[in-house]
Amino acid sequence: MIKAGIIGATGYAGAEIVRILQNHPEAQITWYGSKSYIDQKYADVYRNFFEVIEDKCLDDNIEKLADEVDVIFTATPQGYLAGILTPQILDRVKVIDLSADYRIKDVEVYEKWYGIRHGSPDLIKDAVYGLCEINRDLIKNTRLVANPGCYTTCSILTAYPLVKEGVIDPNTLIVDAKSGTSGAGRSAKTANLFCEVNENVKAYGVLTHRHTPEIEEQLSYASGSPVTIIFTPHLIPMNRGILVTEYASLKKDVTPEQVHDIYEKYYGKEKFIRVLGYGECPETRWVEGSNYTDISCKIDERTGRIVMMGALDNIVKGAAGQAVQNMNIMFGLPEETGLELMPLFP
Amino acid sequence: MIKAGIIGATGYAGAEIVRILQNHPEAQITWYGSKSYIDQKYADVYRNFFEVIEDKCLDDNIEKLADEVDVIFTATPQGYLAGILTPQILDRVKVIDLSADYRIKDVEVYEKWYGIRHGSPDLIKDAVYGLCEINRDLIKNTRLVANPGCYTTCSILTAYPLVKEGVIDPNTLIVDAKSGTSGAGRSAKTANLFCEVNENVKAYGVLTHRHTPEIEEQLSYASGSPVTIIFTPHLIPMNRGILVTEYASLKKDVTPEQVHDIYEKYYGKEKFIRVLGYGECPETRWVEGSNYTDISCKIDERTGRIVMMGALDNIVKGAAGQAVQNMNIMFGLPEETGLELMPLFP
Amino acid sequence: MIKAGIIGATGYAGAEIVRILQNHPEAQITWYGSKSYIDQKYADVYRNFFEVIEDKCLDDNIEKLADEVDVIFTATPQGYLAGILTPQILDRVKVIDLSADYRIKDVEVYEKWYGIRHGSPDLIKDAVYGLCEINRDLIKNTRLVANPGCYTTCSILTAYPLVKEGVIDPNTLIVDAKSGTSGAGRSAKTANLFCEVNENVKAYGVLTHRHTPEIEEQLSYASGSPVTIIFTPHLIPMNRGILVTEYASLKKDVTPEQVHDIYEKYYGKEKFIRVLGYGECPETRWVEGSNYTDISCKIDERTGRIVMMGALDNIVKGAAGQAVQNMNIMFGLPEETGLELMPLFP
Amino acid sequence: MIKAGIIGATGYAGAEIVRILQNHPEAQITWYGSKSYIDQKYADVYRNFFEVIEDKCLDDNIEKLADEVDVIFTATPQGYLAGILTPQILDRVKVIDLSADYRIKDVEVYEKWYGIRHGSPDLIKDAVYGLCEINRDLIKNTRLVANPGCYTTCSILTAYPLVKEGVIDPNTLIVDAKSGTSGAGRSAKTANLFCEVNENVKAYGVLTHRHTPEIEEQLSYASGSPVTIIFTPHLIPMNRGILVTEYASLKKDVTPEQVHDIYEKYYGKEKFIRVLGYGECPETRWVEGSNYTDISCKIDERTGRIVMMGALDNIVKGAAGQAVQNMNIMFGLPEETGLELMPLFP
Repeated sequence: MIKAGIIGATGYAGAEIVRILQNHPEAQITWYGSKSYIDQKYADVYRNFFEVIEDKCLDDNIEKLADEVDVIFTATPQGYLAGILTPQILDRVKVIDLSADYRIKDVEVYEKWYGIRHGSPDLIKDAVYGLCEINRDLIKNTRLVANPGCYTTCSILTAYPLVKEGVIDPNTLIVDAKSGTSGAGRSAKTANLFCEVNENVKAYGVLTHRHTPEIEEQLSYASGSPVTIIFTPHLIPMNRGILVTEYASLKKDVTPEQVHDIYEKYYGKEKFIRVLGYGECPETRWVEGSNYTDISCKIDERTGRIVMMGALDNIVKGAAGQAVQNMNIMFGLPEETGLELMPLFP
Repeated sequence: MIKAGIIGATGYAGAEIVRILQNHPEAQITWYGSKSYIDQKYADVYRNFFEVIEDKCLDDNIEKLADEVDVIFTATPQGYLAGILTPQILDRVKVIDLSADYRIKDVEVYEKWYGIRHGSPDLIKDAVYGLCEINRDLIKNTRLVANPGCYTTCSILTAYPLVKEGVIDPNTLIVDAKSGTSGAGRSAKTANLFCEVNENVKAYGVLTHRHTPEIEEQLSYASGSPVTIIFTPHLIPMNRGILVTEYASLKKDVTPEQVHDIYEKYYGKEKFIRVLGYGECPETRWVEGSNYTDISCKIDERTGRIVMMGALDNIVKGAAGQAVQNMNIMFGLPEETGLELMPLFP
Repeated sequence: MIKAGIIGATGYAGAEIVRILQNHPEAQITWYGSKSYIDQKYADVYRNFFEVIEDKCLDDNIEKLADEVDVIFTATPQGYLAGILTPQILDRVKVIDLSADYRIKDVEVYEKWYGIRHGSPDLIKDAVYGLCEINRDLIKNTRLVANPGCYTTCSILTAYPLVKEGVIDPNTLIVDAKSGTSGAGRSAKTANLFCEVNENVKAYGVLTHRHTPEIEEQLSYASGSPVTIIFTPHLIPMNRGILVTEYASLKKDVTPEQVHDIYEKYYGKEKFIRVLGYGECPETRWVEGSNYTDISCKIDERTGRIVMMGALDNIVKGAAGQAVQNMNIMFGLPEETGLELMPLFP
Repeated sequence: MIKAGIIGATGYAGAEIVRILQNHPEAQITWYGSKSYIDQKYADVYRNFFEVIEDKCLDDNIEKLADEVDVIFTATPQGYLAGILTPQILDRVKVIDLSADYRIKDVEVYEKWYGIRHGSPDLIKDAVYGLCEINRDLIKNTRLVANPGCYTTCSILTAYPLVKEGVIDPNTLIVDAKSGTSGAGRSAKTANLFCEVNENVKAYGVLTHRHTPEIEEQLSYASGSPVTIIFTPHLIPMNRGILVTEYASLKKDVTPEQVHDIYEKYYGKEKFIRVLGYGECPETRWVEGSNYTDISCKIDERTGRIVMMGALDNIVKGAAGQAVQNMNIMFGLPEETGLELMPLFP
């Protein structure tokens, strides 16, 4: 039985790791770290776990934690883990980081977009970008996984096969993303109050959102040369779900069958990526609560472009679910262990 | 492995049985009955099951079904099952009926409130009212379970211990219930369009709702004499969840500790009923997607009344979850098999 | 032209006064008081007023304000106005207080339920409870209006005629209220985040909500003797609207026609109270954005009780609209001036 | 006083014309046409108008109507008006058509995208495309206005100045639009049920939506040569509001100040178009219930593109509000008459 600890267990992503691991047959949580709620019962913070979890919240002592558990999930603010992680800790415990600290290889890019100094740049090279379907083999052998962002996972997976195969020009890529509000986290901000979000839709972070360089870096690897894109996130009045609508110019003359086949080639055998019929539109309701990403595309003969679409649950495949998927890979378990979550509808 | 068939598999309750049984280790669905979608793939009706379920929808042939499966779930319009069920079918197969056809023992009461003629009144006596926590022993030995209504389950479980113990006067009981919109079903009606339900709250079926006699009958058994109540349902702009707020006059002088102890006496060992702290308010978000019912109460010294509150997910404990719980009991399985569904929040 | 000042202009109720007075032909706002946003443009706080309002927010200097305006609206925390109001200020300016400071005549009751010391108990007797349809004549001649609470307005108006006429026993009254989330205000609290409110319904403040004694006091006047009730508020995932469902025992044998006639007697000529057909259910969507209260009732022969229902927009008739209605009365304007707001649907 | 008749008064757009004209000082509705509700009281269909409107619904007799009113609003299915309109009717009455029948000059384009035969192609040339801020002078002198679509109004207004000034290459334009669900109309369809729309976001009509050629035609006039774009609509779980996020390549090297000035040049004096600060994001909540369109943009130095954003209320500026604005222009009234609707927030 894998012993797991969570630092930041009382945010939405942390709580989702908790939900998933409750039904995981090979792992159990032994450390619910939460600075804000030390000594309070975890189930008092999240009443859905009343009579399910009896543990209390503990502090964020990573040194002690490293001795007591096999894997640490960190669902912490940007910069936190980079400031405390050491090679010595990594010798003792595997770490899956849900923050952005080790996602970007070029520390200057990280420091520019995040506006903070990186606390342990030497460790970046040891981290593997935990996009399971793309980096599975690397993940198996690392002790430090940089778990991808929610927007990023959806954006990259949706475009990846067509970039990799040279079907689209990645520098024409525009990612228009729509997210549920859980992505904004659980801290109390006026902008995220019910009455401010309900009956509203808005773009935010236009041309400056931090997930942009993360998408660009991964697509650059796929493309073989640097990629610059536009990424625009939008806030939607719903709890969960991300939908991306992506636009790019075609570099090759392809038929619907051919692009569909390319998606099938990359994802046809993937448990957690479902390639929808050509032209069918993914919807977040069909993946809610599950680890699935639904993807499809449609060619526009009129403009020579293609529209790609992807949908996932931002807290599952976009955070906690993928983190558990990474854990499964790192510990040699079947990848779907504990992740056969049926989407909840309605 | 239990073979299960569903008649009415494409309504919301039917689809929830499907969701739950996907992860049930001892049962599998072999018949997806749906008159409206015969020969269409089930996953084309509910895209959440894309790549999960490959079966097509079949017709509602109960005779054929009775030969092929071990248990039939009927999630059908009122009167349908009563019109086709026979003792011969019940000899061959167990039936769990999610409609109201066999819930009310007095056929005249049924016919009055439902406004239809009962097609098989002789079978009513064979049916057991499937409120698991109350009728567990009877359920074990029946072949026909009348699965309780969503409002009913919540309303009865919330008041039952205090009625049974004679703490409240059941004839003063007022049940003010609030339900998510999935309770209204999936048929296309203007009143249930998004724009008509969103940003609105209303009562409906005031003093005439069909769940009233069902609540009254069960509480009469608990009380030992006939009970007349007021039941008022309200429609809330959310997908899932029922909250009941119940008011009654106290017949005995009780302390908070005493009423809490009474709830603990009845439900303390129940997996799926969680007795909250005295005075704590249940919330539907803490049970969403799960089979839990959360219950609590608070005494009003000023008026000599008590406020009881209960929350459940109307499609799970209020329909499909309880149906599966009944199946588990009928087949001698541990009651929680396949039902350890963590509540999904947010 | 009436010059109006607002203290607390940047809360939801304050902003609604602003919205309404923009189209009021006889009044204009000359002071947008907001401690938190001093010197910022009002339209930067509420972007709906971009290019509509050019004023900046000012401080809460009530002394200065009293010299510059004809009427002050205070939409401030409990206790604030009581701490600064003086007879001298009231000599110079009329005051309409949207807080609870002067609503309750018995200062001990106020201090017990609100848990604060009242700063100017001598002024309470000068205040008129601004429930326009009931206290119209008193309002005409006062300089200090205690504008009723949102729950209170709806609860009282719904029961008032039947209490006044002795049709119901007011001590059996149970008010089960459902409110949109704007009633919780604009301050940043975790409990009011979108993801915490959406897909949820809960009771709160059970048996302790501060609007209880306010309802009781007013119904006591109607009844002629002290009244004790149960009041239970619930939070609903919508922005605006309050629905009350009220239950009471009948003291007289009345027919549907008779109770309907009683409502018509009291409200038939009221512009802002609409008596629906007997048994028709009010819905908040039909009053949203308007100053209407919709009311109806239904007798339960089976239990000898009556169900009364009322709906209003908590920020309009439940706060800002009624405040403007009070202003109109105090200044001798036709009561509907600036208030002919059509309900916005959908 | 202008006498107005509505054909299709019981759809959402029709009902919004009713709401607006209730407070219009120079117009009154004398004909509430609604085939589905003939002889029923209008206020029984829309209870928000209870005690406000006493009229009954009438049939759709356009010949009779033409004799009785000064202007007819048609909020009818595609093809309906084209099938019954004649020059003789237009001699007697002005017509503002909210359907698409006369929006597209090239009847072949209309017939291809709408899949229906146009019933009166000879009248198309007489119609003026009623985008008030662009075609004001033409509207003054026409008797037939083709009122623009909701998506179209928002999409065109947002891009128009930059296309007209040659700042962007219109053939690179991608319009990613997000709409509230009222745009889907009031007819009962499973896909628009509350539980299907709530907690979901999806694209639909990808590359085939009928508003595409309408946007293209108008931008072609602005550009001076044919324009081909991508338009992708999305359905959002909210009642009202459209947000467009538009992407295009810059043809000129422009500064933020310059593009802002261009918007100011075109819209600075427009009452109903509000140019936000450079880079500020429009939000639908700030325009809800009003006739405003909020617009802004942001240049992306990294890719040489620009992001333009626009927000409006789809039933007001996107339908009924613009229709009334057109009426005002056609009848020589000040354009804002009856349209000074303050946005309703929250």
